[in-house]
Amino acid sequence: MSLDSSCNHWYRKPAARPDAAAAHAARDHQARLTKPPGALGRLEDLAVRLAGLQGRPRPAVDRVWITVFAADHGVAAAGVSAFPQAVTAQMVANMAAGGAAISVLARELGARLDLVNLGTLVPVATHPDIRVALIGPGSRDFTRSPAMSDDQLAQALDEGAAAVDRAQAARSELFIGGEMGIGNTTAATAVACALLARPPADLAGPGTGLDAAGVARKVAVIEQGLARHAGRLADPAAVLACVGGFELAALTGAYVACAQRGLPALVDGFISTAAALAASRLCRGAGEWLLPAHRSAEPGHAAMLEALSCPGGGAGGAAGGSAGSVAGLLDLGMRLGEGSGAAAALPLLRLACALHSSMATFAEAGVAEQAD
Amino acid sequence: MSLDSSCNHWYRKPAARPDAAAAHAARDHQARLTKPPGALGRLEDLAVRLAGLQGRPRPAVDRVWITVFAADHGVAAAGVSAFPQAVTAQMVANMAAGGAAISVLARELGARLDLVNLGTLVPVATHPDIRVALIGPGSRDFTRSPAMSDDQLAQALDEGAAAVDRAQAARSELFIGGEMGIGNTTAATAVACALLARPPADLAGPGTGLDAAGVARKVAVIEQGLARHAGRLADPAAVLACVGGFELAALTGAYVACAQRGLPALVDGFISTAAALAASRLCRGAGEWLLPAHRSAEPGHAAMLEALSCPGGGAGGAAGGSAGSVAGLLDLGMRLGEGSGAAAALPLLRLACALHSSMATFAEAGVAEQAD
Repeated sequence: MSLDSSCNHWYRKPAARPDAAAAHAARDHQARLTKPPGALGRLEDLAVRLAGLQGRPRPAVDRVWITVFAADHGVAAAGVSAFPQAVTAQMVANMAAGGAAISVLARELGARLDLVNLGTLVPVATHPDIRVALIGPGSRDFTRSPAMSDDQLAQALDEGAAAVDRAQAARSELFIGGEMGIGNTTAATAVACALLARPPADLAGPGTGLDAAGVARKVAVIEQGLARHAGRLADPAAVLACVGGFELAALTGAYVACAQRGLPALVDGFISTAAALAASRLCRGAGEWLLPAHRSAEPGHAAMLEALSCPGGGAGGAAGGSAGSVAGLLDLGMRLGEGSGAAAALPLLRLACALHSSMATFAEAGVAEQAD
Repeated sequence: MSLDSSCNHWYRKPAARPDAAAAHAARDHQARLTKPPGALGRLEDLAVRLAGLQGRPRPAVDRVWITVFAADHGVAAAGVSAFPQAVTAQMVANMAAGGAAISVLARELGARLDLVNLGTLVPVATHPDIRVALIGPGSRDFTRSPAMSDDQLAQALDEGAAAVDRAQAARSELFIGGEMGIGNTTAATAVACALLARPPADLAGPGTGLDAAGVARKVAVIEQGLARHAGRLADPAAVLACVGGFELAALTGAYVACAQRGLPALVDGFISTAAALAASRLCRGAGEWLLPAHRSAEPGHAAMLEALSCPGGGAGGAAGGSAGSVAGLLDLGMRLGEGSGAAAALPLLRLACALHSSMATFAEAGVAEQAD
């Protein structure tokens, strides 16, 4: 396999187009509901945007699918995380056992939780709820070689699409991707720096809890990786292969598949947003389908969200004019990953849909409208 | 009745004290959960704060009570709202019929919705779900006389406490107050200006949809009201009587009752926060029990939230050190009232409690802790 960007890989095909008519019908309906125009703020925009994405004037996000992709990172050996690498496998087991944050959130929200082990350094005990799709015992240290081969990248992207297959088979109305991988803020920062042409010092942060010296070490490691692979970083797929990770690539594949097939995705924090950026570079128009859920406490996240909502090139303007309003819904200082920030924002999407579909109109309720 | 602040009115008695031991136990428990310390951000603080308020290390907000107080405002005759006054009564009927935003939210959230008509200009048809507690056909125009008599104020405050009686009888774990009253951003702005010693131009905004000329008229009306009653505005109860409204006073009474009896309240937007400020001035320590749910689009709300979280005088520091973190949880440009912003934030409290109570600890899950 070659990553040659002229090739006809599935993940380079463009996204589906949102349904502008459904969005407009939803916007008209909003204006008739018994409230001052705009008084529900971004909950109104959310309902309208989801209407366009789901192609129906009354959107709903009752059936929600969460896939968490797990993998280890060779670069973690460079001491870029506050936690030992064994924690990746331990946390996958904890997720399956129901004890991790995303397990609790999925249960509370009635969402389906799908766990995929793409390659942990330490094996994870077999569990019926963990899908084993091993690509390798973690990616390689990107300061010494590409994080993965081109074939490994293709496998990871395909695993992302396969998760969307499962979500669609379950008739899911929304996809949430999550990740677990000690060291993956380092890989995600490297990916974001390469895609956005920003120096690592701009985007690197403490991750799960590095001190200032740790962050400086992380910056140096990322600089080293970007320098080593400089010749290949113009192509977003090569960026994932050189400095990414299996779970980052799988998330990217999942977002691309969502966008191509017309399934909206709610994007979690720093790591997920790096993958969403890669997806929007590989697949023209993908950004329309990727709703940022929250602003992470990780300092570089704001710049990544901005780039995601205002893509520099490509298809440009959003159908329904909503892409400008894609700042995260929540800003609660979360920095856990696992898809937890997206899960926390899900109730807002559900309430937005319920208000949109169930409120009375002025005419139905016999309420006088604003005089103007 | 006299409002004399030396009198022993129920609403001037101090608040209950949060349970510092429960809050500390909750904080310790948070540190043992399988996540980097602090990675759930403000969801962690919420769980700890609720633990202190509910006096138990594992808080819960499953049973939630919402009371919406409705009343008309004489000052609306001065043209300070984008909607006609008849809308107050129409919206109360719409709430009872299930078509208003708060009706939809209460249904979705499984919260009990309690409607109290304290005095609409136009009568509301009898409905089993509307409690009739008429104090008058709306308050009087505060540019000409006090908005209400001292007896009317006492009735309104008592109605607020009576709502908390009902909430407690239903074993509610959280109280949400809402309001409906055309013209009530004007009254709420006047109350906030009097309590915070700020000029109306600082805090007045478009409400349900005034244009710039409308806002200027509103500022002038508030200035007139504050000037007329200047001699009485040192006492917070007199502020409510002079420039408030029945629903503002009832909300104040409800918040005071919550604080005195130890029931946490989730505070909605601009109008509710004005009432919360009045409650915190009448009842020492009340602010501890009042959790701001969101930041309203109404421009003056930020200053009011700040004053609520950093009370100038009184008891000062918060048990558990949490009062500094009481900025609104959501910032979605909502400006509807009815309690809708508080209802929209409720899922975050529920998820915070679920994460706190149901996540595994490092020891339980066999996950390695951060090395430091």
